[in-house]
Formats: sequence, C-alpha cells, structure tokens
Amino acid sequence: MTADIAAAKAALAYLDLDENPISIRAKSRDFFWYSPALKDALDHVVGDFVVTPRNEAEVIEILRVCYAHNVPVTTRGAGTGNYGQAMPLSGGCILHMKAMDNVKEIHPGRVIAEPGCILKDLDAATKAHSGQELRMMSSTYATATIGGFIAGGSGGIGSCKWGALRDLGNIIRLRVVTMEEEPRILEFTGEELARVSHAYGTNGIITEIEMPLAPAYDWTDLFVTFDTFPAAAQFAADLAEQDGILIKVASVFEAPVAHDYFLRVKPHVTPETHLVALAVAPHSMDGFLTFLGRRPEASLLYRSDQENDWKRGPGPIFEYGWNHTTLRALKVDPSITYLQVRYGFPDYMEKIETIRKEFSPEILQHLEVMRESGKVIFAGLTMVKFTTQERLDEIIRRHEEIGALIFNPHRYTLEEGGRQTVDDRQLRFKQEADPKGLLNPGKMISWDDPDWTFDGMYSYPKIQSPA
Amino acid sequence: MTADIAAAKAALAYLDLDENPISIRAKSRDFFWYSPALKDALDHVVGDFVVTPRNEAEVIEILRVCYAHNVPVTTRGAGTGNYGQAMPLSGGCILHMKAMDNVKEIHPGRVIAEPGCILKDLDAATKAHSGQELRMMSSTYATATIGGFIAGGSGGIGSCKWGALRDLGNIIRLRVVTMEEEPRILEFTGEELARVSHAYGTNGIITEIEMPLAPAYDWTDLFVTFDTFPAAAQFAADLAEQDGILIKVASVFEAPVAHDYFLRVKPHVTPETHLVALAVAPHSMDGFLTFLGRRPEASLLYRSDQENDWKRGPGPIFEYGWNHTTLRALKVDPSITYLQVRYGFPDYMEKIETIRKEFSPEILQHLEVMRESGKVIFAGLTMVKFTTQERLDEIIRRHEEIGALIFNPHRYTLEEGGRQTVDDRQLRFKQEADPKGLLNPGKMISWDDPDWTFDGMYSYPKIQSPA
Ligand SMILES: Cc1cc2nc3c(=O)[nH]c(=O)nc-3n(C[C@H](O)[C@H](O)[C@H](O)COP(=O)(O)OP(=O)(O)OC[C@H]3O[C@@H](n4cnc5c(N)ncnc54)[C@H](O)[C@@H]3O)c2cc1C
Ligand SMILES: Cc1cc2nc3c(=O)[nH]c(=O)nc-3n(C[C@H](O)[C@H](O)[C@H](O)COP(=O)(O)OP(=O)(O)OC[C@H]3O[C@@H](n4cnc5c(N)ncnc54)[C@H](O)[C@@H]3O)c2cc1C
Repeated sequence: MTADIAAAKAALAYLDLDENPISIRAKSRDFFWYSPALKDALDHVVGDFVVTPRNEAEVIEILRVCYAHNVPVTTRGAGTGNYGQAMPLSGGCILHMKAMDNVKEIHPGRVIAEPGCILKDLDAATKAHSGQELRMMSSTYATATIGGFIAGGSGGIGSCKWGALRDLGNIIRLRVVTMEEEPRILEFTGEELARVSHAYGTNGIITEIEMPLAPAYDWTDLFVTFDTFPAAAQFAADLAEQDGILIKVASVFEAPVAHDYFLRVKPHVTPETHLVALAVAPHSMDGFLTFLGRRPEASLLYRSDQENDWKRGPGPIFEYGWNHTTLRALKVDPSITYLQVRYGFPDYMEKIETIRKEFSPEILQHLEVMRESGKVIFAGLTMVKFTTQERLDEIIRRHEEIGALIFNPHRYTLEEGGRQTVDDRQLRFKQEADPKGLLNPGKMISWDDPDWTFDGMYSYPKIQSPA
Repeated sequence: MTADIAAAKAALAYLDLDENPISIRAKSRDFFWYSPALKDALDHVVGDFVVTPRNEAEVIEILRVCYAHNVPVTTRGAGTGNYGQAMPLSGGCILHMKAMDNVKEIHPGRVIAEPGCILKDLDAATKAHSGQELRMMSSTYATATIGGFIAGGSGGIGSCKWGALRDLGNIIRLRVVTMEEEPRILEFTGEELARVSHAYGTNGIITEIEMPLAPAYDWTDLFVTFDTFPAAAQFAADLAEQDGILIKVASVFEAPVAHDYFLRVKPHVTPETHLVALAVAPHSMDGFLTFLGRRPEASLLYRSDQENDWKRGPGPIFEYGWNHTTLRALKVDPSITYLQVRYGFPDYMEKIETIRKEFSPEILQHLEVMRESGKVIFAGLTMVKFTTQERLDEIIRRHEEIGALIFNPHRYTLEEGGRQTVDDRQLRFKQEADPKGLLNPGKMISWDDPDWTFDGMYSYPKIQSPA
C-alpha cells in the first residue's frame, strides 16, 4: 500500500490546494515544541500538500480521493495542539478545516457550528444572538477551532464549573465523515460521542458540532495575592465550593511564577507572591467580596471592573491560565517544560504539598480548579525546569507513587497522553471507519501495535525519517 | 407600653385598610397547621387590622404610626410559611405586602423587584425580558412572594445547583425600613444581608430586593422508578454529581409515597415503587439519557417532552417536591406530619439507611438533592405518621444521635427552627432597628428571653390568650 501523492493532488487540483513548501511546513506543525521529547521526535515531520475544504461535500471528496490513492490524511484545526496531534507523521494530506467556520443555528442552551469556527468567533456569535457562550474553552480561545478543541482538547476555562469536555452533557452531537471507499456521514450522540471526541481525528472527520451553551456575562477579572502557597490553593478551592458564587476560572500560581513569568504583573508583586487569577460573574461580585473579606490572608491586587494604577493592564485573565501559563514561562525561560497532573478529591492539598516539599523550586506548581464527579479538584499544569529526560521521568514516577495521576504531555499518542489504556470505542470505530488506517497515522498505538506494554515512549515505526 | 389600636387605625384610615374580621382572620394565618404542635399553639392567633401599602413611603408611614402607638407589626407576603412565621402572636397590624409587586429592573444575571412580587410572576417577567429566571424558588412558586421567600424561606427548586438562599451570592442586595420613631431606609449587601434575610420580619421590613438570575430553559420534567430506595437515592445523588448535566430539581420518594399520595402518578406505579422526580435542561437531555442508559436499575416512567399515555398529566414536577410532598400526603392522610433533616456529606446514604431501618414505614423518606459547600447532600423532608408528641420527640432525638441535623418545623421561633443558636447579627440589628420590639413579636427568643436553654418548646409569654 503506497501513497500516490501525485495522483491525489491531480484529482484534488480543483479545490483550494496549497503546494507551497514553506506554508506546507508551517501547517504541518503545532505546539509540539512545548515538550523537549516531542521536539526531538517530530521536528522534521512534514505533509505533502494542504487542502482546505469549504463544506462537507468537499471533505467527502478529499477523503474519497485520498482513500483511493492510499494517502494519509491528518486534520488540522488551528494547530495549537501541544502534543503533535495535528502533525502528519507519515506525510500525505493536511486537511485544513479553517474555511468550514459557519455558525449554523443558535438556540437556548445550544449552538450548531462547523468545526473550523474559532472559539472566540463562536462565542461572539452566540453572545450577540442571545447572551450565551460556550461552557468551556481552551485558553487558546482566540486562535483554536471548536473542532480541534473537541478532537484534541480536554477542557479549560469553565471546567471549574462544568467539568471536562468528555463529561456527559458537555458535547451534544457530532457529525462525522468516515475514510472509506465511499465515505459515510454519521451522527453521534450519547455513548457514541466518545468514539470521535478526543480521538485526534484518527477515525473520522468531524463536520458539524452541537454544543451546550451557558449564559455569557461580562466576567470580572481578578488577581488575589497570598504569602503562602497552601493559602492560595485553599482559597481557590474554597471559593469554587461556594455554590452561590459563579466563577469561570480559578488558577493558582506558586511564587515566583507571577513575578518571573507574568511580565505585566511583575511590577505589582514580589518574588515571594503566590497568585490566584479569577474570573467572577459581575452579579457574583458582592458574594465574592464578602468571601474575600473573611480571608485576611488574601489581598486583592487587581480587578478589571474598577479603575486601577496599572500602567499596562494585564489583558484577559484566562490567558494566564491553563496551557498559557507554560507559554508565558517558556518565553522567559526556554528550559521550562511541564507536566499535566490530576490531584483528585479529597486529599489534593496533601498531595500537592508532598510534591512541593520534594521538588520546589525545580518544579513550580500551577493549579487549575476543576470539577470531577461533582467535586472540586485540581488539575496541575506543573512547570518543570528541564534538565534530562531521566530526571523528568523520575519526577513523573514520584507523582505516580503518591497517587497523583499524570497525563504525559511528552507523548504524541492518544494512549500515552491519556490513561495509558486503549479506548476500545475509538479503536473499534477506527476499524469500521478507517479500514486502511489512513487517518492521522501513528497516533493510536492500539491500532498499530496492540501488544504495546507502555514501558518507554512509543515511537511510530512508519514515521518519516529525518531528511 | 400598651398598643393603641384605635389611634393607629384612625391615623392609617387613608390607606388601604382592611377591618373585616373574616378577612383579618384569614390574613392572620399561614400553613402553621402542617404541624400538630403549632396547630395547638397558634390556632387562635389573630391580628387587629390589615394594611396594604402601595409603596415604600406608605410602609414608612405605617411603621411610624404603629411605633407611635406601640402597635405590633407582623409582615405578610402570601402567608405560605409553614412555621407560623407570619402569624401575629400579639395581634396588632398585619402589614400585607401584596400591592408592592413591581419588577423594577432586569439585567444580565440580576433582577431588582419589590417584595410583594409572586415568584412565578417575577420569573415570567425575567423570562420574557431576557430568558432568565430565579436561581431557586420555593415549591410554593405559584403563590409565594419573593419577600416572604427571603424573610421566611431557605431554598428549594434550584438548590441542587445553587445551594441555599443563605449562601453567599444568592441574594445581592436588600433595602430595609426600620421600626423607629423616624424609620430609616438602609441598603444591605455582603455580610449585612444576614441581618434581615430569614429573620421573619422581626427586625426590619424589606422594601426592595436584588436577586441573581440563572438562564431560563424549558425544563423537561421526568419521573424515574426504582425497585429499591437506596438505588433511587444513589441515582439522584450521582446524577447531581454529573457536572455537565444541568438539572433544576431532584426529589426522591420512598415507596409507597408515589402510589399512596401522588394521585395522578398512582395509576402508573405500585405500592413498591420508589420514585425520583427530576427537571433536566432540554439541552442536557442527551447527557441525561446516556446516564440513564448506564443504570439498568432505573426505569423512565414519564417525560414531559414526549407524547405519553397518561390520561391526566402530572402537572409541574416541582410541585411534587420540597414541602409540596407533605401537602399532597396530608390531603390523603391528615395524620401525616413531617421533619426537616440535613443528611450531610459524605455519609448521607448510611445515615438515611439507618433511619429507614429503624423507622420505615412509620416515617417515610422524602429527600431533596442540595448543594452544601460545593458537595451534593440531601435535605430530608421526612413524612411522619403522627401519633404523640413524645414519639415525635423520640424520632427527632434518634436523628440527632446519629448526626442527622434536624431543623424543627414544629416551632415558631427563629432559633428553634434553625440551629438552636442565637444569630447575633439578627439580634443586634433588632436592637438598633426595632427598639420597642414591635416587629413580629415572639419569634426571636434571644430578644425576649436571652437565657432560654432550649429544653422543651419555647412558648411566647405575651401570646394572645385563646378567646
Ligand atoms: C498556549 C496553549 C494553551 C492551551 N490551552 C488549552 C486548554 O486550556 N485546554 C485544552 O483542552 N487544550 C489546550 N491547549 C491545547 C490546544 O490548544 C487545544 O486542544 C485546542 O483546542 C486545539 O484546537 P486547534 O484548532 O488548534 O486544533 P489542532 O491542534 O489543529 O488539532 C487538534 C487535534 O484535533 C484534530 N482535529 C482538528 N479538527 C478536526 C476535525 N474537524 N475532525 C477531526 N479531528 C480534528 C487534529 O487532527 C488534531 O489531532 C493549549 C495549547 C496551547 C499551545
Ligand atoms: C406547600 C408548601 C411548600 C413550601 N415549599 C417551600 C420550599 O420549597 N422552600 C422554602 O424555602 N419554603 C417553602 N415553604 C415555606 C414558604 O412557602 C416559603 O418560605 C415562602 O417563600 C414564603 O413566602 P410567602 O410570601 O408566603 O411569605 P409569608 O409566609 O407571608 O412570610 C414568611 C415570613 O417572611 C416575613 N416577611 C414577608 N414579607 C416580608 C418583607 N417584605 N419584609 C420582611 N419580612 C417579610 C413574614 O413576616 C414571615 O415571617 C413551603 C410552604 C408550603 C405550605
């Protein structure tokens, strides 16, 4: 089974086809370089051509042609994924979704849109229509697509209230095109959603999305400072447990993150300042300020709804949280990398303090309040001063020893980035929907190597060899 | 200090004054008869006249006049309170708020209204204006006022998501008139709200209210049945812990409540059916049905969003829950009374089962899912087949022994119906705002008898003597 790239290109020439090597290279990359391990493994990876469908019919045509000519297809939203999810390990076609960006219908509590719509544009449309917005969004909100968020993301701003993207109810319906001789169109709801959500486009192309909405408010952005890290983390968790106070994000940053990596915050804090960043609904501000008044350990540093003496405002607060924290750190100190940790209920505080005592400041805590099974928990997007792969592995092992779940962000496969188990629903659907295994090759271990045992990093045998 | 009723009436004659003995008697009563103990203690209580102010200026005038003539003032919303909260123990003036029912302003996330507005009318206004509704409401939604809910209620439909009325953020602002020679107008937010919310109108009259709003949806009403009670309760708790599935109420009824007391449900169940009643957001129905599909022990009996074979529909689902359950039971069996229990996190299931093993079917469980400090818990509005006061006290004692908090609904004072402790904030504000102690006399023990020790039922010494 060899790919006939030339034939596929010829057959697709009437579409929006990009053959410029510089732009192909750009569109073959995502934020994989966040990870030193992925940077080593994937830096050379490049597709053969980029095609940008304008509608579902064109998607079907592209898949039909690529199927006929054995050409791998790797879908691209905005390429903000940070595990190389959108990188074409075997070259081939980059299916760029940016032109399919229509918002089709808006109703109370839900929206129907095409996958290429940018999160920010989607929110603008639902807000203008009826004061609604997405329940949750990636911190790459200004650039990422809704399709990429569903196929490659996990949650983010809003997850302190609504849980993760995979939780029941957080996606309503997905329309999917298969990679077969005659591509089929399928509509998934309920249990079927798990087949293709967070599947990196390995088993179908999402062409329409129905998502639940929440009310949109003019959220008040806030920074609150603390002298100790446990006080900051406890404040965020306790605030999130206030059932009557509506918040959208609560991020906790160990000192000296605020001082060293948040350049606009720096003039207002010291290296010893632990910071909490919050977005609070305007009509919850009275409740929030009452809560704050009961916590003498907390000092209000900034609120976006009042005049202040900041010469340069901090910008949107949510662009300090989730993966944006690491991005800010990386800009100051390129030796920083990170881990994704889950500190579960109920003993999250003890686990975090155990890790801090053993590793701070080699690793610095960055926590995000989440909801999991109705409880407040913390996601850790821990910043690590990278030295060697061995040391990183040791740090990961220590987290696992104390029961802090790690989602390894230094791996490009679905399984290794998740719970290291095969998702049977995704695998079975791939067998049905992508019989030739042409969709985003190398990202689903269970397809390529069912006996893989997860000791050591998986390396896709058919990855392009470096030039 | 004797009340000069005649002088007060003369001075207020230009207002909407009601002197008809039959209507005065009707407006002196609430749902106190729910409780056999309160029925005995309060049945004879009656005011001297009713006055219905049209605006805050008239409220001030009434308070000024009554202060001058030492006339007690007991405020009335709709009189749906069930602890005799609105009953004038020392006679005097009934201040009826029904004419002050304006909805003044509606904004994203909040509404400003007068206290006499009926909950249902308030919701209709905010829904029509911008698709919003109150976060929570009493099950007496169709008749109760927002002022009475705040001054006398505690929570209800919506509390499974937003917690109790007293939780920070669930009331934004209250405007209050004091009972002094020269009544003052005060605006309360934050910590000050606790002075007058749930104070039974003992220390000020609420004349304007600012409440947070949630999005209004066309909630789908559902009944789900179970063969065992623990399965039903666990289902409700687990559903409430699904962060992505938006619900408004989740009530659990032990068999044979559904069969014996819910007349329209009876044809569809057996005496062995345990029932869960739910309201689910329409855009969460896919998530809900997926959750349901994972629970073979649960059978869907009714959903309001589809055709069904019910000859007579059940009516709004929330009128089965909260205190309406007891109302339905009482209509069938007048010997039923009830208890208010708090089964806290995390061991609520064990506590409930302990009580059930010892007392069912003498007492039948009715649970409401609530949120408390960010956790799902159960409020119990347990139905009790009343025999003697001694037996009721024994049942209460047993609940307390196993750590199930009881809010005694067979008492008419603030303290006994609450946590049996003096609320200093309310007492201190009464000293300031009602120096003569004329507002709703006999309802705040700490005012009348600071040394009261809470053994046995408090009996207000200056209560009217039975005719
Ligand atoms: C600074 C930064 C911050 C981030 N913050 C967050 C965060 O808060 N939360 C979070 O979850 N993630 C976060 N991420 C990761 C990433 O941004 C999100 O997952 C984002 O939503 C991806 O969207 P995208 O359009 O860029 O998708 P891409 O990166 O282009 O694609 C992501 C995956 O989805 C697949 N895909 C895209 N469109 C389709 C489609 N239509 N059908 C099938 N498969 C498709 C791609 O093949 C790829 O595997 C962050 C990344 C960075 C760099
Ligand atoms: C069948 C039934 C179901 C119920 N369900 C619930 C429930 O789900 N949740 C719940 O919390 N309660 C419930 N209750 C209790 C009661 O209905 C609620 O508390 C209700 O909101 C009271 O409103 P109301 O207008 O009838 O007030 P009233 O009964 O008229 O007054 C209640 C108290 O508030 C005071 N008050 C009224 N207006 C003012 C004002 N403007 N300023 C100062 N004080 C004032 C009164 O003096 C009185 O002490 C229920 C009662 C019944 C009978």
